[in-house]
Amino acid sequence: MAPGPLRVALLGCGTVGSEVVRLLHSSGDDLAARVGTPLELVGIAVRRLGRARDLPVSQDLFTTDAQALVARDDVDLVVEVIGGIEPARTLILAALGSGKSVVTANKALLAEDGASLHAAAAASGADLYYEASVAGAIPLLRPLRESLAGDQISRVTGIVNGTTNFVLTRMDETGAGFGDALDEATALGYAEADPTADVEGFDAAAKAAILAGLAFHTRVVAADVHREGITEVTAADVASAKAMGCVVKLLAIAERVDDAGGTGVSVRVHPAMIPRSHPLASVREAYNAVFVEAASAGRLMFYGPGAGGSPTASAVLGDLVAVARNTLSGAPGPGASDYAELRVRPMGEVVTRYHISLDVADKAGVLAAVAQAFSDQDVSIRTVRQEGHGDDASLVVVTHTATDAALQAVVEQLRGLDSVRAVASVMRVEGQGP
Amino acid sequence: MAPGPLRVALLGCGTVGSEVVRLLHSSGDDLAARVGTPLELVGIAVRRLGRARDLPVSQDLFTTDAQALVARDDVDLVVEVIGGIEPARTLILAALGSGKSVVTANKALLAEDGASLHAAAAASGADLYYEASVAGAIPLLRPLRESLAGDQISRVTGIVNGTTNFVLTRMDETGAGFGDALDEATALGYAEADPTADVEGFDAAAKAAILAGLAFHTRVVAADVHREGITEVTAADVASAKAMGCVVKLLAIAERVDDAGGTGVSVRVHPAMIPRSHPLASVREAYNAVFVEAASAGRLMFYGPGAGGSPTASAVLGDLVAVARNTLSGAPGPGASDYAELRVRPMGEVVTRYHISLDVADKAGVLAAVAQAFSDQDVSIRTVRQEGHGDDASLVVVTHTATDAALQAVVEQLRGLDSVRAVASVMRVEGQGP
Repeated sequence: MAPGPLRVALLGCGTVGSEVVRLLHSSGDDLAARVGTPLELVGIAVRRLGRARDLPVSQDLFTTDAQALVARDDVDLVVEVIGGIEPARTLILAALGSGKSVVTANKALLAEDGASLHAAAAASGADLYYEASVAGAIPLLRPLRESLAGDQISRVTGIVNGTTNFVLTRMDETGAGFGDALDEATALGYAEADPTADVEGFDAAAKAAILAGLAFHTRVVAADVHREGITEVTAADVASAKAMGCVVKLLAIAERVDDAGGTGVSVRVHPAMIPRSHPLASVREAYNAVFVEAASAGRLMFYGPGAGGSPTASAVLGDLVAVARNTLSGAPGPGASDYAELRVRPMGEVVTRYHISLDVADKAGVLAAVAQAFSDQDVSIRTVRQEGHGDDASLVVVTHTATDAALQAVVEQLRGLDSVRAVASVMRVEGQGP
Repeated sequence: MAPGPLRVALLGCGTVGSEVVRLLHSSGDDLAARVGTPLELVGIAVRRLGRARDLPVSQDLFTTDAQALVARDDVDLVVEVIGGIEPARTLILAALGSGKSVVTANKALLAEDGASLHAAAAASGADLYYEASVAGAIPLLRPLRESLAGDQISRVTGIVNGTTNFVLTRMDETGAGFGDALDEATALGYAEADPTADVEGFDAAAKAAILAGLAFHTRVVAADVHREGITEVTAADVASAKAMGCVVKLLAIAERVDDAGGTGVSVRVHPAMIPRSHPLASVREAYNAVFVEAASAGRLMFYGPGAGGSPTASAVLGDLVAVARNTLSGAPGPGASDYAELRVRPMGEVVTRYHISLDVADKAGVLAAVAQAFSDQDVSIRTVRQEGHGDDASLVVVTHTATDAALQAVVEQLRGLDSVRAVASVMRVEGQGP
């Protein structure tokens, strides 16, 4: 006997939700064939009724009572695309608590309180899938959680925020400053009216927490992530990177650390210079990409559009097909895996490299004083380049790796030197370059 | 109560098999935590005993009787890395027939007779996983089969053979001819002593069949794949591509076709010129990459090492973790999906574009005669470039899209023209360029 249809409740009907409705309608036959039974949309929770929505469903499906919709006996699966912490959390917990599998795109909630959600899913044997929460349609969580489950991941380096990548691409291409490039991004619809979550790195940090948790089988929350945005990246930084054959990118990095302090993970979001030959350097505009290094697999990269209604809806529907199949087979997919319980290292302990640009007086003894500051903190210099401009000179130093704390201390000491007029820029260097 | 260990039989102990043994040993604790129970290697089938193998397992595990090993009651899961059609097929069918899930890297067998294997798996409720069969460790089959299960894939374009990509990269970089570049690949270990399967495109064709089947939910076998290798690619072809801002790659293409003839798929492997701005153009040396275009997800790319013992073993172990989890949960993963039953179109019906280079007499009327040949077949010319060299001239024509049959007919007609001394090269153009 063929199983009956699986009934889906949709929470939220904005850009992504509307696209999910359209695809459930237009691809219904294909989805039914792939799942083994039809998916039937039985309710859509929205904030306000009566808004004109050009969607191929009856107006009767809409309701403002999300709680009641989730609780309905005739709902099997729940898709949450409201976003934000509440009421999303309460609704997801209610769904999972009653054994309904949930598909969500909610990175903020997962990065803040993924553990509660996973625990609720495990307790009732329901699925919690969230491929759409990181890097839109790029299949990433499933490869990390399943394809690489037999490997040891050492590092995940991602460009996971389209807005900042668009801004940095424009700065690189045109020499514009941050403000002008952001204005262009806003005008073209690549940045929101309030771009704080993007440009200050909050969005990328949430995604970094999710990626780190999956890659290292460890519980990581957004608050664990060291976060620096791109608002202080200057045209001079970008030009300086260019001069070294590098490009500035906002990177989300999750890294396994094995040293005298034991095994741990470092999770951070910050702008960094990477060599133009690095695969991530050619990821331009609003595209996303994630570069994964694993012991056996080697260096992998996943590339694609990181946001937008259609790509995000594609990821949501992929998850919906998966949880529907699992519901039919009676066995949930792999749940949260945090057995490794690695310690998340504070940024000061993390080993990085710095590119430091100084405005100095062009006189004898300056280089010696500067070099002494590095030496005092046991930071080894990789390259130094001095250029005179009359009375002034600029000095560009790239270090070897050292702890971030030692590098910060060097910068503090440089700021106190008489012969250093200004520390013009400080930026980390990643990806083996320059 | 914790479940008992899952017992694994390994068939084949060459480069990949040895690495699987090493990883099962070195990552045993991690794998047990991820699966939920230990994986125990209980037997290894090899062709000859007594070969010195520097592996961390007892000699007692080795046997030459693969059939008996597969049949053992105390074997739960089978990993097949022998390769080739027989005895692999018989062994896999025996394993699946007795309900043992199978992980294999055997692209040749899957492309020749995947349907029998899938049917055997479905009949007994066992899993058949084969991520390692295409593009080494690059997670590809799982994303196609699961992450994009809610989307409509329109096209998959892959560089899926490392040997040929290495040869073509060298030809592009150094201007070498095919023979010299192949010699270098052989000397460096990138090509086998008998490189036929690689350079004639058989290896890529098997992978194309597997990718097409997954992407389009249709049964595709290697014999359905139009196949041309790279042995006839000349230094002049590569130079000609360069002059147009293109690079020559051996592409495996699986494409959905919707036209007057209905919906179908085209599956083919051939060298083609692609613009240097295309993401696949920067895939160099022995790396692999697969570019996927889907209606909602947009343009995705998956990149990584396509072969080698470690990457392939990583993919095998990822699958092994998955089938082990499924065995514990009692529900197999998604099986074969061929509900769409699209017709595989013969190459003549496929719409492509040609780059044709002619040696012609430098005299009046030549261009008219050549243009007439295109016009006779209703093939529209996109660009034409003529260069005189004394008595001779070369004429390079790039067409708009037309059926491959019409383009072939044009080439035949050109060969018959008095004013055409030789058709110096014919190559397809892909990726919107030049």
